[in-house]
Amino acid sequence: MSKAPKSYVRTVDVPRPRLGNNVADAERLISVLKKDLGTGHIRFPMDLALDFPGKLRQWNHRVKVVLFRDSRGWFLVDIQEPEMDTDNPLFGLAVDLGTTRIVMRLVCLRETISPASSGLSPRGDASGEPFTGSSGVSSPGHSSWESVTGSSSASPRGDGFGKPVTDSPSCSGIAFDNPQVAAGPDILARIHHGGTSRGRKELQELVINGINEHIAILCRDMGIMPSRILLMTVAGNSAMTHLFLGMEASFLIREPYIPAVNSPEPVRASSLGLDLPPRAVVYLFPNIGSYFGGDLVSGLLFAGIHKKENPCIMVDVGTNAEVVVGCREWLIACAGAAGPALEGGVSRMGMTAGPGVIDRVKIDPSTGYVDIHTIDDALPLGICGSGMIDLAAQLFLAGMLDIRGKFVPWVCGERYMEMDDEGEGGAAFLLVDRLHSGTGEDIVLTQIEMNSLTSSKAAMYSILQVIVENTAGMEFSQLEKFYVAGTFGSFIDPASAISIGMLPDIDMDRFEVLGNSSLEGAAQLLLNPGDFDEIEKIRQGITYIELNVNQEFMNIFSGAKFYPHTDISRFPSVKDTIKKVT
Amino acid sequence: MSKAPKSYVRTVDVPRPRLGNNVADAERLISVLKKDLGTGHIRFPMDLALDFPGKLRQWNHRVKVVLFRDSRGWFLVDIQEPEMDTDNPLFGLAVDLGTTRIVMRLVCLRETISPASSGLSPRGDASGEPFTGSSGVSSPGHSSWESVTGSSSASPRGDGFGKPVTDSPSCSGIAFDNPQVAAGPDILARIHHGGTSRGRKELQELVINGINEHIAILCRDMGIMPSRILLMTVAGNSAMTHLFLGMEASFLIREPYIPAVNSPEPVRASSLGLDLPPRAVVYLFPNIGSYFGGDLVSGLLFAGIHKKENPCIMVDVGTNAEVVVGCREWLIACAGAAGPALEGGVSRMGMTAGPGVIDRVKIDPSTGYVDIHTIDDALPLGICGSGMIDLAAQLFLAGMLDIRGKFVPWVCGERYMEMDDEGEGGAAFLLVDRLHSGTGEDIVLTQIEMNSLTSSKAAMYSILQVIVENTAGMEFSQLEKFYVAGTFGSFIDPASAISIGMLPDIDMDRFEVLGNSSLEGAAQLLLNPGDFDEIEKIRQGITYIELNVNQEFMNIFSGAKFYPHTDISRFPSVKDTIKKVT
Repeated sequence: MSKAPKSYVRTVDVPRPRLGNNVADAERLISVLKKDLGTGHIRFPMDLALDFPGKLRQWNHRVKVVLFRDSRGWFLVDIQEPEMDTDNPLFGLAVDLGTTRIVMRLVCLRETISPASSGLSPRGDASGEPFTGSSGVSSPGHSSWESVTGSSSASPRGDGFGKPVTDSPSCSGIAFDNPQVAAGPDILARIHHGGTSRGRKELQELVINGINEHIAILCRDMGIMPSRILLMTVAGNSAMTHLFLGMEASFLIREPYIPAVNSPEPVRASSLGLDLPPRAVVYLFPNIGSYFGGDLVSGLLFAGIHKKENPCIMVDVGTNAEVVVGCREWLIACAGAAGPALEGGVSRMGMTAGPGVIDRVKIDPSTGYVDIHTIDDALPLGICGSGMIDLAAQLFLAGMLDIRGKFVPWVCGERYMEMDDEGEGGAAFLLVDRLHSGTGEDIVLTQIEMNSLTSSKAAMYSILQVIVENTAGMEFSQLEKFYVAGTFGSFIDPASAISIGMLPDIDMDRFEVLGNSSLEGAAQLLLNPGDFDEIEKIRQGITYIELNVNQEFMNIFSGAKFYPHTDISRFPSVKDTIKKVT
Repeated sequence: MSKAPKSYVRTVDVPRPRLGNNVADAERLISVLKKDLGTGHIRFPMDLALDFPGKLRQWNHRVKVVLFRDSRGWFLVDIQEPEMDTDNPLFGLAVDLGTTRIVMRLVCLRETISPASSGLSPRGDASGEPFTGSSGVSSPGHSSWESVTGSSSASPRGDGFGKPVTDSPSCSGIAFDNPQVAAGPDILARIHHGGTSRGRKELQELVINGINEHIAILCRDMGIMPSRILLMTVAGNSAMTHLFLGMEASFLIREPYIPAVNSPEPVRASSLGLDLPPRAVVYLFPNIGSYFGGDLVSGLLFAGIHKKENPCIMVDVGTNAEVVVGCREWLIACAGAAGPALEGGVSRMGMTAGPGVIDRVKIDPSTGYVDIHTIDDALPLGICGSGMIDLAAQLFLAGMLDIRGKFVPWVCGERYMEMDDEGEGGAAFLLVDRLHSGTGEDIVLTQIEMNSLTSSKAAMYSILQVIVENTAGMEFSQLEKFYVAGTFGSFIDPASAISIGMLPDIDMDRFEVLGNSSLEGAAQLLLNPGDFDEIEKIRQGITYIELNVNQEFMNIFSGAKFYPHTDISRFPSVKDTIKKVT
């Protein structure tokens, strides 16, 4: 693999033609770019060539080009007039195409500018070392994310703006609910909806229209023209990637779970109906399998596990759980709905983070006093996923939850309730009574909800065990880093997750929260063309295990449904805490 | 370079997916094709992937694919249901895109068919040797060209149907005048007309509409659906190639004569407005320079000079004269309007071949008796280019033309005329008097016309001398073969051309007439995918000399304007003939 270029946008001088060098205009430009980039052939699409000769001369043989890659190498995206004003950069749009939320971020594209040759004395060739300009890294006027989508994005939390790539140019983002929810709340419903070509068209239009709407808002707020966005990188799970392209997704969810395409070729914005320049190019991160999508590959690129010397693990807890363990020598991935356990599990039980949502819970084991914390310290409205894990951990450590995950009435005391219309006797735990809640209603956690959490945490631990111990043949303690990715994962308190046996009992300082790693990876690719090679390395080097059909998983799962586990030796720190408490 | 596939159309079994082999559908197909073709990566355009999973299963995991190449390798053109009926082939359309005439030929595409696997026992892989079927070579019902364009193609002569590739499948052709004539009679006028993007659009529409109209006629007459034409290869000169694509051509005719593109990427039929399946792919033969177009490259491919052990020469006499000399080690090309001499020269002086056109002339030197031959032995209507060369040779050998190419009144006798409204005393030679002509008018050749022929023949010889002697450093006698290409060239009598000093004085058996070599090359590429490598070899190996600006040429030109030449030692056989005659 040849050295990768440092930017997608380049301003170069094309040698003037003369009788002794009468190579065609297109080929002269390609020749300069090949030298400049140190790469092989570059494809010059014919639509760009039609009026190129006139423009080339009008621009005095100096042009700005935008390049991108497909499976076979580099191609020209656009050719533009070079600008005097280097504070007017071109942009890329990074998109985290989530099932429930879509997050987009504008990224200034770096530009490489060859030193301008005098109009009177053409250089004749382009052998001079290109000046790697940093003009594209300058601020376009705004430098922080702005909330523009009303209530659904009232809080930036969970949208991945908290952890920008440190050396990234200024950027600005926007987040909104995936409009496909209108056609189906979850992936399964949408894939069924997309069973006909009309249904697929509808789903595609929903998401494209939603993106268009928010491109307009984002550009308006940033004061830039959408015509300056020429690249778009999209990281979504396999199903979302298929549905975004309008591609048949039915076989993703039928055994043996086959995507239509794993590495989609980049497509032009015009073919998708995006309100970007028709020539703008849209790249979709490749899938590894049906349940291991481009969002994970993008996240892996950001985490950089494929470059680590010692094994690390990355866990993305979203609608599903996806896990990758490995290092620069090897990568093993597994993912899946993991049966009904995690499907519709933790991440969907609670409310979306927002003011008044309970995100932290503390229970004093001796008094039974329940201390809650809400976002923005508003009156409590409900509980989110991370709050539930805290709550379960605290209930368990206080003895209010037994090792099967059932409420213990005599320990819960007056907070223990029996509701008529529920199964299992309608047992529930009163978290906030109606007098103190923001809704005027009791905020309770039912045994049914607790069972669901139990299944989810058991599934998570079982997945980790299968991949780390049974597949990679390692101990959890050998992992150098434990990366937690995904919006939901960002808010989990690892200590609580360990207490309930959801995450393995390793040193707390090995846990690292990545934030919205899919978005970060998508943004990173817009800055580093060399990441194409990294993505290819990840894609080709990864061994993918389909968990849905893994018998080992089902065997392990039963033990993991206990708190923290039937095998307490796996959780020495929890064992100690329980001892202290009791 | 890996071994080239033998056909563009292949029917293959795609391994069924299973839990242990859950590669995506698109990638499984690509993987089979890569093995099958022995080639590197194959691009799978996203529009083909959208409904591929359903079709793949519906077709029981067996598909017919059409492949083609661009500058970076192979890509999928289309995916179709495999057919039981192998007598229903797919077609390619070869096009000779001439400035004055367009000739098209339908070619049955060869198919490679993997042995069908039983529906019950999938093969699991595609490692078996592919069966190179010959079903595509079967006749679609018609096997000879059919004249369908009325009077303008009343005769097949000169349209290149006389010399089909011997082992080519059945084919059928059609020829028609280039409709761009409406916008400009010659290349220069059309390039000026295309100076605006509106003008370019008009020119493109004219040629595309003309082609569409004749595709419809051709398909109707052949009883095939235009939807079965998936590939189109177009060989045209540089200007025609530019105008066909709607590309700026202005700089082709301004010093230093620069094309917009030399090797255009293939384009989809839909982007050109062709009445073919939108996914059909149109390939344009690459140009070497402004005056050395894809028609010549195609002709070279057909002649195969680039594979010869000993040096050969190919001369294409059309609107311009283009010459290539070389062998498998080296190739030198030169071409050009060669000043005003050949521009608007021989090939445009006479009539287009057709019934009543004088194509052969014999003059008895002792009696001065003029014996003419007309096409179809009809009453004479006028003279065509090849007839003019015959006439000039016979006039010269009979002493009726002096060595400057001027009529000698006392030898011409009563056939010598002086017309009032012409220059140079309005001298003319009466070829057929009004009593014997089919028009009721005298058929004459004026001194002006003869001067034009003199310039043309001098330009042709000078070009040959510059390239063979001055550039390649050889003698004409060292050339193993002298290929004469182009519609006009097909009808030149080499003996006559030698007599007037137009072609060098070498053994007659070294001359070989290629016919419409551009069309033949375009048709050949539709049969042999390996020819892509040959084209690349030709393109990269050729040294191109721009004759327009060659001072040597102008020096030589003066001597070559004499009959046969100021240096009579160059024409020993003519010297002997003159001796015998006098």
